[in-house]
This record gives sequence, structure tokens and C-alpha cells, in this order.
Amino acid sequence: MSNPDFSMDIQISFGHCDPAGIVFYPNYFRWFDRCFHTYLLKTAGGHRRLCRTLDAKGIGLMDVRANFTSPAMDGDLMTLDMTIRDWGRKSLTLGYLGRIGDRAVVEGTEVRGMFVMRDGRLRAGEMAPLRALLDAGIPEEDPA
Amino acid sequence: MSNPDFSMDIQISFGHCDPAGIVFYPNYFRWFDRCFHTYLLKTAGGHRRLCRTLDAKGIGLMDVRANFTSPAMDGDLMTLDMTIRDWGRKSLTLGYLGRIGDRAVVEGTEVRGMFVMRDGRLRAGEMAPLRALLDAGIPEEDPA
Amino acid sequence: MSNPDFSMDIQISFGHCDPAGIVFYPNYFRWFDRCFHTYLLKTAGGHRRLCRTLDAKGIGLMDVRANFTSPAMDGDLMTLDMTIRDWGRKSLTLGYLGRIGDRAVVEGTEVRGMFVMRDGRLRAGEMAPLRALLDAGIPEEDPA
Amino acid sequence: MSNPDFSMDIQISFGHCDPAGIVFYPNYFRWFDRCFHTYLLKTAGGHRRLCRTLDAKGIGLMDVRANFTSPAMDGDLMTLDMTIRDWGRKSLTLGYLGRIGDRAVVEGTEVRGMFVMRDGRLRAGEMAPLRALLDAGIPEEDPA
Repeated sequence: MSNPDFSMDIQISFGHCDPAGIVFYPNYFRWFDRCFHTYLLKTAGGHRRLCRTLDAKGIGLMDVRANFTSPAMDGDLMTLDMTIRDWGRKSLTLGYLGRIGDRAVVEGTEVRGMFVMRDGRLRAGEMAPLRALLDAGIPEEDPA
Repeated sequence: MSNPDFSMDIQISFGHCDPAGIVFYPNYFRWFDRCFHTYLLKTAGGHRRLCRTLDAKGIGLMDVRANFTSPAMDGDLMTLDMTIRDWGRKSLTLGYLGRIGDRAVVEGTEVRGMFVMRDGRLRAGEMAPLRALLDAGIPEEDPA
Repeated sequence: MSNPDFSMDIQISFGHCDPAGIVFYPNYFRWFDRCFHTYLLKTAGGHRRLCRTLDAKGIGLMDVRANFTSPAMDGDLMTLDMTIRDWGRKSLTLGYLGRIGDRAVVEGTEVRGMFVMRDGRLRAGEMAPLRALLDAGIPEEDPA
Repeated sequence: MSNPDFSMDIQISFGHCDPAGIVFYPNYFRWFDRCFHTYLLKTAGGHRRLCRTLDAKGIGLMDVRANFTSPAMDGDLMTLDMTIRDWGRKSLTLGYLGRIGDRAVVEGTEVRGMFVMRDGRLRAGEMAPLRALLDAGIPEEDPA
């Protein structure tokens, strides 16, 4: 993951950790999700704007996995890298790597779809229009 | 709080606790909120149904406080009692008491308003219609 | 997953859901973890007692995955089934299935290890002693 | 709160918000707690180091309150200011103000104690030694 598409720092705090003194694992997924949404914000004005433009309900999860290679504790600063791994016709695969200095603590993958309402049901829509908006970036005239 | 309007049990789990081994305090507010919403569900079909009926955006927080009198840990079963303390014209005051057996662990108060959109802004609406729906309960013909 | 080793009900509440109105996905992992810890509590007196007996730091995650097949919303009651899939020498694989009535909403797998301190480092310990304690259940003389 | 003792920015994300599209209120308390712990980290090497030095179990909550003056949404950047309001003999009072630009969204107060084990029970200890360590800052020779 030598050239991530987006990175953010997570300052690990007391409240993220469990009685064993290490990060309670569901928090890693909150950070994966936050990393993706911050990427959307910085790249294309955010999830709400994209959904409005694309008439979508959300860009949500279909599948996720993570592997925990080393513990993280209160006071650690974790750098979380996100890489766009694959654009499928109806899915987007994202890779994540969290590390503290050189030490990897979590490695994971999210598969997301863009959910649209069709015939009264939520369905996975085509990803091409989302990809085009992310490639285009934030238009000058749109402040938010 | 001898006669609560609603009660629920919370089985305190490992992931609710922090490195000191006791409940991470923001969780108590998640449980206050869950208690209120479960009360709405059991009494009047839930928050979504009420908001649709009342043309409201939500029944949300204006003010909250809590006092932590004793720690709770993984494995404890907490009973959380909710009492309707006061109906104001534009607010509802709820009291909470969490206890493990006879031992009080948290005592708190939420002040909630019903937020409605007026002239393009969220405003606190009149509470009387909400109170009437809660008093009336779930109509027979509405299954959800 | 016709014969789960443990099951619990999760009343899905407003605060578990995101602006799309469906469960924010990291919550499913909080529920997987809570299900496992409640199983430990009911079967063998809980995580703290087991770790004390086994001189372990925790029974934590090595790997996890989940597949989201259908959305869940405020007001839904989800039944979460847990099945012990496999005891490895240094790992335990657990399967989860969450459903609302007959509709599956999440299917997942956790791989857990028992972490012990050896030579100043956390390492995955042998699982056989944990398995023996879970098979034995809570001894009569130990109230907690 | 013109001269806070500590400030941090919170990038509000999709997963912090509820079906009404605004921050789910318990998150504000997670941020209050994180702000205090980050202050401890930057000022005196962090909660774990302080507790070890002071033979304390934790610097935890006795009382908390908050007032929500305006909603915050996905994409908002909230600046959270923390001010040390009062050092009592056995308590510390902290004030918080969260704002988005010039607009206040939350104002709150935490009262914390330093919990020490005395005669087999958790009790509130004297705050003077904690205050002295915070005033002294991180010693040169201690890297963590």
C-alpha cells in the first residue's frame, strides 16, 4: 500500500480502549468508515452532496473484513491509509492499513455499493456515475 | 423514582468498559436515549411513526445531565428506570435511574424538544400533540 | 446455522442508525462481541473470571469479517445466533447470523485468540484450557 | 471561554449522526472525554503515566452536563475548547464549548475525581498531586 488514495491520523484515546487496555475492535470499523467519508468530503464535497447528485440513498457496506496484527493503546497515534483497490460495475473495493510508526496494527477491506431506490426497494446501483464525480472533484461553483 | 414510566435491563458487557474496567461514561447516555426510544416504540409505535404523524424532524435533546454514584463493570446487570418528570409547553423532562440490585450507579435528566421545520429552520414545536399520541397509545389498525 | 450455541435479541434503536436510516455497520461488530461475552458470562462466569483462571490478558480478535445482506432499521428486533465453528490449537472461530424474522441481515465470522504475556510480549496461547473451562461450565461454589 | 486550556478539532462524520441527520448526542461526551485525555497526553504524558505515578485507578467522572444549542451535521468541522474551571480538594471542574465557526453547538461541564483504592474500595483522592504534575509538564527524561 505504498501510495494510498487518502490518509488520516487517529489519536487513540482512553475511551477507544477496553478493559484489556487495547482498542475495542469495532472502533477500527468506525475509523475505516470515517476515513472513507472524509475522503468523499475532501474529494467531492461529501456523501450528502454526492447522494443528492446521484439520487442515491447512501454509499454503504456490502462486505467487510479486517485482520488485527498488533494491539494499539491509549496514546498511540495511528496513521490510517485508504487505497481504492477496485471499481466493479456495482461495487467499490477499498483497502485499509493502520499503522503506528512502522508497525501494522490493522489491515482491512471494505466492499461498498451505492444504494438506490428502484421499484420500492433498495438496490445496488451502477458505480460509473460515482466514479466520474470522484474523478471530477469539487466544482468551483459549489461551496459545499 | 418509585413508579417509573418505563424500565429496561442493560447487560453490561466488556466492550462498554474502559481500561479502568468500568463503564465508559458516554455509554450511559446511549442507554438513556435507547430507553426513551424503546418507550416510544412500546407505547406509540416508535419515533419514526410519531415524527411522521406530527410532521416533526425528531424528538431530540436540549439539555442533559448525569451523576455517577458508583461504578458498573462487565457482567453487571443494570436496571434502568425512566420517569416522565414534566411536560413543558415546548419541552419534556425525563428522569433516569440506573441501579445494579439496590445500588444506584447513575442518576440523570434529559430535557427533550420536538423539532419541526418552520420557515427553513429547525425550531422547538408544541409538545401537546406528542403528549396526546403517547397517552392514546398504538391504534389497533396500525401494525407498526 | 440450525443449532446455534448462543442467541440473543438486539432491539435496534434510533441511535444505532445513521443518516440513511439504517444500522451504522460498526454496531454489528459491537453486537458480535457482546454476544460472545454474554455467552462467556452465561456459560463460564464471564471473561474476567476466565482470564484470571487462565492467567490471560484477554480473548481477543485476530480476524473478522461480515457480509451485509439486508438493511436493519430503528424498531427492528434482530435475533443474533452464535455458533462455535472451529477450535484450532491457538484460535477459536465463531460464526454469527443476525436476522429479523426470516430475513438475514448480517452474516459474519470472528477468529479469536487467547492472549497471554510471555517474555514481555502478548502472544496467542493454547486454546485447550479455555475449551475445557467452557465445557465444564460454572462450578457450583463460584457465584460470579 | 475566551482563553481555553486546550482545543481540538472534530471533523464530524456520517457515522456520528443519527437518522435525523444530526450528531447523536452521546458522541459529544465521547469528544469531551477525548479532549480531556488528549490534554493529559500533550501536557503530562497521558492518563496511564499519571495514574501510575499517582497510584490511581483513573481520573473519572462524577458529574456531567451539556446543553445543545444548535445541531451539527456530517461535514461540519467542530472546534472543541476545554477550560479548567475549578480545582476542588477532591474534584476538578472542566468547561467545554463546541462551535462550528462562530455558532455554538454544545456547551458542557464535567466534574472529575481521581479514584484511588483505599481499604478495598474506590474513593475520590486528593487532587493536589495531579495538579502539581499537570503544572510541571512532561519531564525531559520520560519519553512516554
